[in-house]
Amino acid sequence: MAQFIKTIQNFAFANNLWEKGSRIIIGVSGGSDSVCLLDILSKLKSKYDLQLHITHINYALRGEDSEKDEIFVRELSKKYNIPLTVFKPKKADYKGNLENSLREIRYAFFEKMRLQLGFDLVAVAHNQDDQAETVLMRIIRGSGLNGLSAMNAKTKNIIRPLLQTSKKDILAYAKENKLKYRTDKSNLDIKFTRNNIRHKLLPCLEKNFNPAIKKTLSQWSTTVASDYEFIDQSAQHFAGKVCENKCAHFNAQDFLLQHSAIQRQALRIIVNELKKTTLDVENGQIEEMIKIINSSKSKNQKALICGLNISKKGVKVDIRC
Amino acid sequence: MAQFIKTIQNFAFANNLWEKGSRIIIGVSGGSDSVCLLDILSKLKSKYDLQLHITHINYALRGEDSEKDEIFVRELSKKYNIPLTVFKPKKADYKGNLENSLREIRYAFFEKMRLQLGFDLVAVAHNQDDQAETVLMRIIRGSGLNGLSAMNAKTKNIIRPLLQTSKKDILAYAKENKLKYRTDKSNLDIKFTRNNIRHKLLPCLEKNFNPAIKKTLSQWSTTVASDYEFIDQSAQHFAGKVCENKCAHFNAQDFLLQHSAIQRQALRIIVNELKKTTLDVENGQIEEMIKIINSSKSKNQKALICGLNISKKGVKVDIRC
Repeated sequence: MAQFIKTIQNFAFANNLWEKGSRIIIGVSGGSDSVCLLDILSKLKSKYDLQLHITHINYALRGEDSEKDEIFVRELSKKYNIPLTVFKPKKADYKGNLENSLREIRYAFFEKMRLQLGFDLVAVAHNQDDQAETVLMRIIRGSGLNGLSAMNAKTKNIIRPLLQTSKKDILAYAKENKLKYRTDKSNLDIKFTRNNIRHKLLPCLEKNFNPAIKKTLSQWSTTVASDYEFIDQSAQHFAGKVCENKCAHFNAQDFLLQHSAIQRQALRIIVNELKKTTLDVENGQIEEMIKIINSSKSKNQKALICGLNISKKGVKVDIRC
Repeated sequence: MAQFIKTIQNFAFANNLWEKGSRIIIGVSGGSDSVCLLDILSKLKSKYDLQLHITHINYALRGEDSEKDEIFVRELSKKYNIPLTVFKPKKADYKGNLENSLREIRYAFFEKMRLQLGFDLVAVAHNQDDQAETVLMRIIRGSGLNGLSAMNAKTKNIIRPLLQTSKKDILAYAKENKLKYRTDKSNLDIKFTRNNIRHKLLPCLEKNFNPAIKKTLSQWSTTVASDYEFIDQSAQHFAGKVCENKCAHFNAQDFLLQHSAIQRQALRIIVNELKKTTLDVENGQIEEMIKIINSSKSKNQKALICGLNISKKGVKVDIRC
């Protein structure tokens, strides 16, 4: 399995994931992917002179199983002799869509830890299968290109060394290296969309349409993430100029001169900027905003969209919390 | 069903599909969608002072059925009192992937007809279901954003007035207005990918994931088409400067300064420009080209990709037929 580690190193090199001496926090749930990631980074530790730190988040959502996961990760920390920080979020912080909410909590905690420790990077164990599932889930929900940017090998300080590795290869590596890991039973519960995609839709696509569908989707999402990044950068140009603390003002005509792709993305950036969030904004809400900005009615326009007040008086558009 | 025609008119207005006095060629296969399109445009003829002309392409691929389709469309031409041109392509022109080949032949013929007649537009009967199928098919094949540009309400002189209308609504309109149409039996044959998607995958997605999946995919593809258009326009800027008759030359460093989204799209444009085609270029081939341009080896690089010769000497890149 030296080949496996070599592949991960090549991927890390091609995507500039880390440098000699990098200080990396590793997110470890105790599942096969994060245990594999931990094992590999610990093996590469001396070669790249890495400084490592484990974090585990105990959401306390699966009763005794959550506690056992925590105990398991505490043992891993001893086994690999890598320090550990465990975080238990308050349940009151779980709001709205649970999956999105946990994601927000997780990444906010990672960033806080990184700053506290003075570390460079946070490594998470997303793999090719996760990526294929996420792509499909977002396509099915119709969330547009924006939702795909989470799928980069590197996003700011977050790195995903296993992103082009299949679950199959991860499990084979764990077996060959006799790694123990915890199985999240809720993964086997088909009542959630993601699990439906994992256990029903992807196998159906593999069997009937494209045996390499996971690889195809995963590569596709890389291309699309790059397209999205370009559009996002171009839209930042407009959005950056109009946001001011808790509100955004602009001239409707200046806005409408932009390409429609830029109009949409600029509004997404403005909403996220004003609401201090990174959550996906629904396409329908963006279209409603554009309708108001585009309105040729002489009457003043007003609406509450995405929890923000948007108004148009003459050519003046105002969006505020 | 006055509402149905009103919806189509609103869609046409929102997308600037035609103007008063437009001269429109209608592609009529004889199936329910194109018969419905013909019926609606003929009803709007006097209101918008439209000049109409029917075209039918007899691919002669389904034996007697193809001949019956042609006879049926000849009768429609008499019934609506709209002139007709029938085109029978040579079988020798059917090359490579049949679906792509027929598409190329079809659009080349439409454009030729339009210029010959001095007409403005070509109307085709793509609907929401077609759009959802195409999106899924392209996602499954991993063809990236580029493949989706065919799905605009208006692309140059091609208009798609039914693009946001569901097959269900089209069939209801045909029934209420007692329109007769031909059923393409090959549509019911599940051996082709598109039919698999239509008869297996979409019903599965509708039932298990999102009852409005067709609408979601169709709207999604509109957003994505707009994103693609923006990237394409930005990439044209680079590609336009480097193509010269049957070859393209550029400096590798200038190329690598572009955002990766623009690099990919510029290469797609260059390939299509040199090969005089509009076919999709596979992502893998684009990645191979980028690898050569990106190569830091001092040795000269040479390869045959997409049927084109690509070479790199120092920083000079040359691509030619």
